[in-house]
Amino acid sequence: MSVEDNSFEITFLPDNVKVKAIAGESIMEVANRGHIHVNASCGGEGVCGRCQIELRDGEVSASPGLYLTEQDFAQGLRLACRAKAAGPATFYIPIESRADASSFKKAAKAEENLEVEQRDPMVLQYLLEMTPPDAADNVADLDRVTQALAAQGLTDLDVELAAMKLMPQTLRDEDFKVRASVFFEPPIADPNQTPYGRLLSLSKAKLDETYYGLSVDVGTTSVWVRLVDLATGEAMPPIGDLNGQISFGEDVISRIVYASKGDGLKKLQSQVIATVNGLLARLEETNPGFRENLYLITAAGNTTMSHLLVGVEPKNIRLSPYVPPVATWPSIRPSFLGLDVSSHTVMKIFPSVSSYVGGDIVSGVLASGMYKSEELTLFIDVGTNGEIVIGNQDWMTCAACSAGPAFEGGGVKCGMRAAPGAIEIFNYEPEAKKHHLGVIGRGKPIGICGSGLINIVAELYRCGVVNKQGRFVENSSPFVREGEDGIEYLLSPASESAGDRDVVLTEIDLENLIRAKGAMFSGYQTLVEAVGLTMGDLERVIIAGGFGSSLNLENAIEIGLLPNLPLEKFYYIGNSSLTGATLAMMSRSMWALAQDIRGRMTNFELSETPGYMDKYMASQFIPHTDASLFAK
Amino acid sequence: MSVEDNSFEITFLPDNVKVKAIAGESIMEVANRGHIHVNASCGGEGVCGRCQIELRDGEVSASPGLYLTEQDFAQGLRLACRAKAAGPATFYIPIESRADASSFKKAAKAEENLEVEQRDPMVLQYLLEMTPPDAADNVADLDRVTQALAAQGLTDLDVELAAMKLMPQTLRDEDFKVRASVFFEPPIADPNQTPYGRLLSLSKAKLDETYYGLSVDVGTTSVWVRLVDLATGEAMPPIGDLNGQISFGEDVISRIVYASKGDGLKKLQSQVIATVNGLLARLEETNPGFRENLYLITAAGNTTMSHLLVGVEPKNIRLSPYVPPVATWPSIRPSFLGLDVSSHTVMKIFPSVSSYVGGDIVSGVLASGMYKSEELTLFIDVGTNGEIVIGNQDWMTCAACSAGPAFEGGGVKCGMRAAPGAIEIFNYEPEAKKHHLGVIGRGKPIGICGSGLINIVAELYRCGVVNKQGRFVENSSPFVREGEDGIEYLLSPASESAGDRDVVLTEIDLENLIRAKGAMFSGYQTLVEAVGLTMGDLERVIIAGGFGSSLNLENAIEIGLLPNLPLEKFYYIGNSSLTGATLAMMSRSMWALAQDIRGRMTNFELSETPGYMDKYMASQFIPHTDASLFAK
Repeated sequence: MSVEDNSFEITFLPDNVKVKAIAGESIMEVANRGHIHVNASCGGEGVCGRCQIELRDGEVSASPGLYLTEQDFAQGLRLACRAKAAGPATFYIPIESRADASSFKKAAKAEENLEVEQRDPMVLQYLLEMTPPDAADNVADLDRVTQALAAQGLTDLDVELAAMKLMPQTLRDEDFKVRASVFFEPPIADPNQTPYGRLLSLSKAKLDETYYGLSVDVGTTSVWVRLVDLATGEAMPPIGDLNGQISFGEDVISRIVYASKGDGLKKLQSQVIATVNGLLARLEETNPGFRENLYLITAAGNTTMSHLLVGVEPKNIRLSPYVPPVATWPSIRPSFLGLDVSSHTVMKIFPSVSSYVGGDIVSGVLASGMYKSEELTLFIDVGTNGEIVIGNQDWMTCAACSAGPAFEGGGVKCGMRAAPGAIEIFNYEPEAKKHHLGVIGRGKPIGICGSGLINIVAELYRCGVVNKQGRFVENSSPFVREGEDGIEYLLSPASESAGDRDVVLTEIDLENLIRAKGAMFSGYQTLVEAVGLTMGDLERVIIAGGFGSSLNLENAIEIGLLPNLPLEKFYYIGNSSLTGATLAMMSRSMWALAQDIRGRMTNFELSETPGYMDKYMASQFIPHTDASLFAK
Repeated sequence: MSVEDNSFEITFLPDNVKVKAIAGESIMEVANRGHIHVNASCGGEGVCGRCQIELRDGEVSASPGLYLTEQDFAQGLRLACRAKAAGPATFYIPIESRADASSFKKAAKAEENLEVEQRDPMVLQYLLEMTPPDAADNVADLDRVTQALAAQGLTDLDVELAAMKLMPQTLRDEDFKVRASVFFEPPIADPNQTPYGRLLSLSKAKLDETYYGLSVDVGTTSVWVRLVDLATGEAMPPIGDLNGQISFGEDVISRIVYASKGDGLKKLQSQVIATVNGLLARLEETNPGFRENLYLITAAGNTTMSHLLVGVEPKNIRLSPYVPPVATWPSIRPSFLGLDVSSHTVMKIFPSVSSYVGGDIVSGVLASGMYKSEELTLFIDVGTNGEIVIGNQDWMTCAACSAGPAFEGGGVKCGMRAAPGAIEIFNYEPEAKKHHLGVIGRGKPIGICGSGLINIVAELYRCGVVNKQGRFVENSSPFVREGEDGIEYLLSPASESAGDRDVVLTEIDLENLIRAKGAMFSGYQTLVEAVGLTMGDLERVIIAGGFGSSLNLENAIEIGLLPNLPLEKFYYIGNSSLTGATLAMMSRSMWALAQDIRGRMTNFELSETPGYMDKYMASQFIPHTDASLFAK
């Protein structure tokens, strides 16, 4: 028997590649040897679960493990990195396990930076060691405390009612050695002025005790919070939940409309408060009693979400000339809003630039660092309301553009949010006239999410099934057919779908997507040209917000949503609204910087800016009427 | 017939003086001609009702009028100024109608001064005439408002949540011409620093619209409020009510004890809040809707009352070394305390000097003007807790002395508060061995009030029925007898009293009164001597508080409660706590002055001051062991 006698053949579908293997090799190794890409974020350590493959025939040595249920296993699913070759076998590599190669590796570089130059939060703690009173020195408790703070340079103090009430007992329990938590409030008119101090509470003297800040991103769809130990600067992982307001409308406009009817404002406010309270309750599980030591909340949200959080009627936000009631918020006592926090907790809300460029964008720009960079940067947050900021350390312009809901799966016949069942990845084989679907959660398809829509249209455009005008090319594919709403592309027949209907892409969907991407692109152009530059001058693109994480850059450029720059110029910074809020919570200078950034952002109302409509019309092609903008 | 034929004789009892009269003369004129004193505060205009006399015999021409009921009239009561002589008649002049002569004309001069040099209340209003927003100028509403205020020099503003919420609608209803109410808060650490502005509300532009301030005197027994139009400085008459806490104890000590048990603090707070709310409801009747325009409340109370109002546990006030939790109060939102006022109303509470020299005294000193006078002034507020301030424009010392409840009718066998049925005036005729009682409300006697006690004891001492040691002199009067509790003086047998018991004055009552007046007097002496002066150096005495109004100065000096000064050196300034609070409400400079006064008052804890006890012991005589102090 020769050595070769021990070898056998492993077949990988759908590409039907055969590779020799010997018993005991991992299937991952075998696939790599055959240049078959299988996802493996963890590098083959068996801890990411992304290398799932399907055993179609033959045998392999494996056990279910962490990422596969008994049922998955019974259906043939294996982890390529953990399964050991044991004899001839045939594996099918699902599209999701090929995703890194086909899609995700073209995503923007992710980065988040929570470093601050100086940790000087708006709430500071002071150790006060006072001489207990006696007959010769019986000034009031509060005078003793303010004198002790004055000795540390704090001469200009106001005092919270709650702090005052607990003070006599705390002082005596702690024998007049206490920790004073003082909130420094920059007057809103001039954030650089000496801050006004406010004694929030007195507590046990132990200075090494954790005291917390909480950053909150109040999104239209989701709310995220992040707890930070202000003493050490340690930030805990963010946690999030759907904004409870979602059942009253999916976008800000529908929320504003709802708020203006009856007690709608009150209802919406209580919904978002309940959402944050739910997150606080979850934090309580991992950080029991943290609320006692929670002093500061920084919150960033779009203009509408900020108003609904505080309970200020937002209707003028959407009425011309688009005047929000409040852009710069005074300090708020969140306990008065109904948040389950102590009365000593104060909240700062990020300032907005305009009705549709909100505190979340100011916070995002703070997190992005673009305000201090020499590079001409395009910052975008893609969504129903797309926000755009262009500029660098010297100047910044911003605008909001009403892209419509296509990026979030709205206004699309089979559109849905990026949830299990949504088609997100799509490959088309022009010769075989076949397509492959990547579905979130790996089940049967239900519909198409926003990033899926971009990927599908880009692929169909590339393969000649969709033309420049955003129409299906006749006879280009067996899936193009006449449907209820005109010509459509059949992605998945009802029989193969989780719902009871065909999942299709219609020409109306194409129109909506083109309108949406055109609105964004003509926004960039308008801002760039407003300062006398061209798109070619852009040196960097920063993508913020949840949408960016699943965005395939090549596809987004292909359809004309993103400008045509080398892929390495794109950065994805995740939930920059939360990151910026966290930075500002850890550092008073960062908070002051946010005010400064807000003041430096020149807002353009695109609908009122000359030239915008022409640019918008010119953008209604794939990728654009002006092909030179997307020349490869 | 001669002219004399028209005349007839009018007889006045009890002095049995006969005066000739002719028909049509008022009985007041007749009495005056006979040098018979009948009270007539109004000068004979028939509008004060104080000249009631009793027709015993004969006839007179009169009708009941405003001050006499049909029943009074049927019983013979007439107003001397309104009754016209019609024929021979006999009148009895009740002791109450002789009171001006016998007692009240020896009361201190009353004065109240509500003049302020500059009307610059802590809340000011600004007329803002803004250009409504358009597409070229669509800054947020709040930015427009803060910019308009900045144009008037207010650059350092914070904003109330409530103001913010109503702002968008108000601006549009009023076409961006509004009145901004701004509260200027002096930081508590340094009242002279530039005040911190806080936008309380926006309202209709009409600048001549009334806007109100309310001053409050939170007394242990009574609560008084006074509404002031801050635009014109017009002060409405004060209204008052019993402090609802009274059912939980009559003095501050019993309140403190009650507050420290269970939810006692909460109960006491809600009682006083309910009392103020009741007064607000009464103001609402005469000033409908005033709360909408009420921006500022200034409150003065003793240290304990201030703590109970805010809801701060007061127990340390009464525990050595007598450290109150708070002496200088931060600004309070009274709506948070449960007061029925708008959320835009702010409250400033007067600072206390010590546990027993409270904000009411600071306010009183402010009202008295002693802080700016060259004259060495003694300021006193007589009560269970007696407060004393001595000083002038250069220095001030103060102390509280625990006089005990005798001045308020407590600890006295038949003692009662100064209410109907209380014997207040007392005349003794040594030769006839008769006495006359003046009873509040003119009914049958029930008991003795504090000022009555002083008047009775002074008269009995003068007439030799009570001796220097505070004992009844044997056989000095038929009313001196052996009673249940030792020797006593029978003021009114049960048969002539409203209650079912004899109204008596016991030797124990005498002891209590002597202790009380001695505590006060030795307090003055201690403070005077502490700065190297003597009682003879006092140039002026200012009496504050409700007690002073009914105090007969000669009698109070007779028993040694007041220092032996010419009567014209005494001034009665009424509820100076309320007056001072009103002044500070109308003028920020007066408020700053109150802080300054508080800082200038050097507090003495009498019980810890050397020499006090000796002086107290020496004061336990009528009027004093050292007769030279009261030499006539």
